[in-house]
Amino acid sequence: MASITVHLSEKSYPILIEPHLLSRSGALIAEHFPHARAAIVTDTHVGPLYLSELTASLQAAAVEVVSLTLPSGERTKCMDCLMQVYAFLSENGITRSDLIIALGGGVIGDLTGLAAATWLRGVRFCQIPTSLLAQVDSSVGGKVAIDLPQGKNLIGAFHQPSLVLSDPDVLTTLPDEYWRDGLGEVVKYGCIQDPVLFSLLERLAPLGRSALMAEMPQILYHCIHDKAVVVEQDEHDTGVRMTLNFGHTLAHAIETCQHYEGLRHGEAVSVGMHVITRLSERCGLTESGTADRLDALLHALCLPTAIPPIPETDLLRSMHMDKKHAGQVLRLILLKRIGISYIYPADTAFFEGMNSQLRA
Amino acid sequence: MASITVHLSEKSYPILIEPHLLSRSGALIAEHFPHARAAIVTDTHVGPLYLSELTASLQAAAVEVVSLTLPSGERTKCMDCLMQVYAFLSENGITRSDLIIALGGGVIGDLTGLAAATWLRGVRFCQIPTSLLAQVDSSVGGKVAIDLPQGKNLIGAFHQPSLVLSDPDVLTTLPDEYWRDGLGEVVKYGCIQDPVLFSLLERLAPLGRSALMAEMPQILYHCIHDKAVVVEQDEHDTGVRMTLNFGHTLAHAIETCQHYEGLRHGEAVSVGMHVITRLSERCGLTESGTADRLDALLHALCLPTAIPPIPETDLLRSMHMDKKHAGQVLRLILLKRIGISYIYPADTAFFEGMNSQLRA
Repeated sequence: MASITVHLSEKSYPILIEPHLLSRSGALIAEHFPHARAAIVTDTHVGPLYLSELTASLQAAAVEVVSLTLPSGERTKCMDCLMQVYAFLSENGITRSDLIIALGGGVIGDLTGLAAATWLRGVRFCQIPTSLLAQVDSSVGGKVAIDLPQGKNLIGAFHQPSLVLSDPDVLTTLPDEYWRDGLGEVVKYGCIQDPVLFSLLERLAPLGRSALMAEMPQILYHCIHDKAVVVEQDEHDTGVRMTLNFGHTLAHAIETCQHYEGLRHGEAVSVGMHVITRLSERCGLTESGTADRLDALLHALCLPTAIPPIPETDLLRSMHMDKKHAGQVLRLILLKRIGISYIYPADTAFFEGMNSQLRA
Repeated sequence: MASITVHLSEKSYPILIEPHLLSRSGALIAEHFPHARAAIVTDTHVGPLYLSELTASLQAAAVEVVSLTLPSGERTKCMDCLMQVYAFLSENGITRSDLIIALGGGVIGDLTGLAAATWLRGVRFCQIPTSLLAQVDSSVGGKVAIDLPQGKNLIGAFHQPSLVLSDPDVLTTLPDEYWRDGLGEVVKYGCIQDPVLFSLLERLAPLGRSALMAEMPQILYHCIHDKAVVVEQDEHDTGVRMTLNFGHTLAHAIETCQHYEGLRHGEAVSVGMHVITRLSERCGLTESGTADRLDALLHALCLPTAIPPIPETDLLRSMHMDKKHAGQVLRLILLKRIGISYIYPADTAFFEGMNSQLRA
């Protein structure tokens, strides 16, 4: 079984990657958390697919289990649902000796992680991510949060899981738009720091989803290792972790202007990576040919590159608000070439006239 | 100026103790947090007394200030008020470059601290405690929390402040019951680890509150130093920090049975310290004479020692629930003698027949 340890001194934890891992999860959890009871949080999409298998596996390992199923979808990442999780933990008398398990995608992971971070000032937490995006991104690094009506991820914490179980098999049931959602972030790791992963993707992409699925353990290993290396250097997101934001400045602006009801996150990141690399290559900040190579891969993976029909002034205003919110200068992540990225302090003016520049 | 640094590697922070500190707070905060805006949270009791002085001091140091005043009282430590704090932070665009200031007692400190721990995954936080209990206890150690209808402090975090300003002068306006509330915890530090503090209190107590106030900088220094030493050894409350719970097993049971509307926390701790020390001395677990010496000090400070009229079965049931909640054996804190404490694994049976035992 592939295992990656995220080294964060007393908060270090293993991420296990293997097909059929879900069916063995009970024994693994019983071994890592002896005598703990397990409180599972899942949603109405994932629950019917995998909750009974997880529960049976835990019970076979003599772990006492309770579970809560919340509505699936982005709106579940809210204070009302967080209060439902707290009520569930209270009703079942979950203590600091017990374990909270998130079985689901990024929404369930973020919500459940925040509940685990704050229930009794912090309870151990196991992630079983069931979407590609959650497996390669949100389940690594300990960022947990919910949204407020005023904005995304406004309330949150850094709470590292104690164990992550990544089973590529669960991705077979992933709807296409969620598949693309994850692929956007997979490509990002190749771009910013992993040329071997990028080449692997170039080879597999023309062969379609089944070819990618066949190599998924290896792809997951690359992505998780890449993110772990960055998180280890910068747990609280004040330095090098910024490189993970490659493509994200424009992506966030698109998502905000579309009120999170247009492109999915990974798709918006795909557009963002395409645009910034075209622009930076035109300025001589990126080696010539990089943007063509990136675009070819994005297209082979059926990822979008066209900016949705949003007035540029709206996108720029949104980026400006983001920058103000961060209380600092805008730091763009640019590619030197495929596999090497760097931080470039700039202004939103970098994006001015982007549509006409891209057509030129 | 007296200064104690709480050493917690990258989370270390100073606690400053000095009369008239509030009037100098602006310059100190501007020096510690250059370019930060300040978002102050206070309550309807403390705000009218000290908010204008703090605001003026900050503005004189060119710090931009916004403030929120919540109702005073225990009920403010709730999710509704936490949401009000989040709305206030959002409306004023508070970012991770800014500073959140808690101006008030334990309720405002705990609530504001949790908001600071979770707003944008953590914003810097300055405590200006205005009650004796907050100065000697809740503003040291980073425990922040709110209550749920299901129980006290169920939602919380460990979030260390970046700076604590303890001004003994603000205690002059403290109502008598809050004064006693704090004294209970002050005596506790003397009992568990500080015989010099205990002797100082024995000398001052017969002379009344004004004599204690005259020596308050020294008393605060002792208590804060004592707690800092313990917190440094056990930030997340899994070991030696338990000694801070001397007197608290029975105190929590009394507070719970009285629905937090009878004795105040420090008063209940006074009863708890008296009872457990009488019982442990009878068993030969505490040196003879210790309970008499403790009782004499508690009486001189007008602190209660009589168990309120609650059926013993109710108190024992409450302790049993507490133990179950902690998911482990009951660990009592006993005195060897004044100034030396130890952990004693026991059962709630230790307290059985306490009323008749104490009369015997």
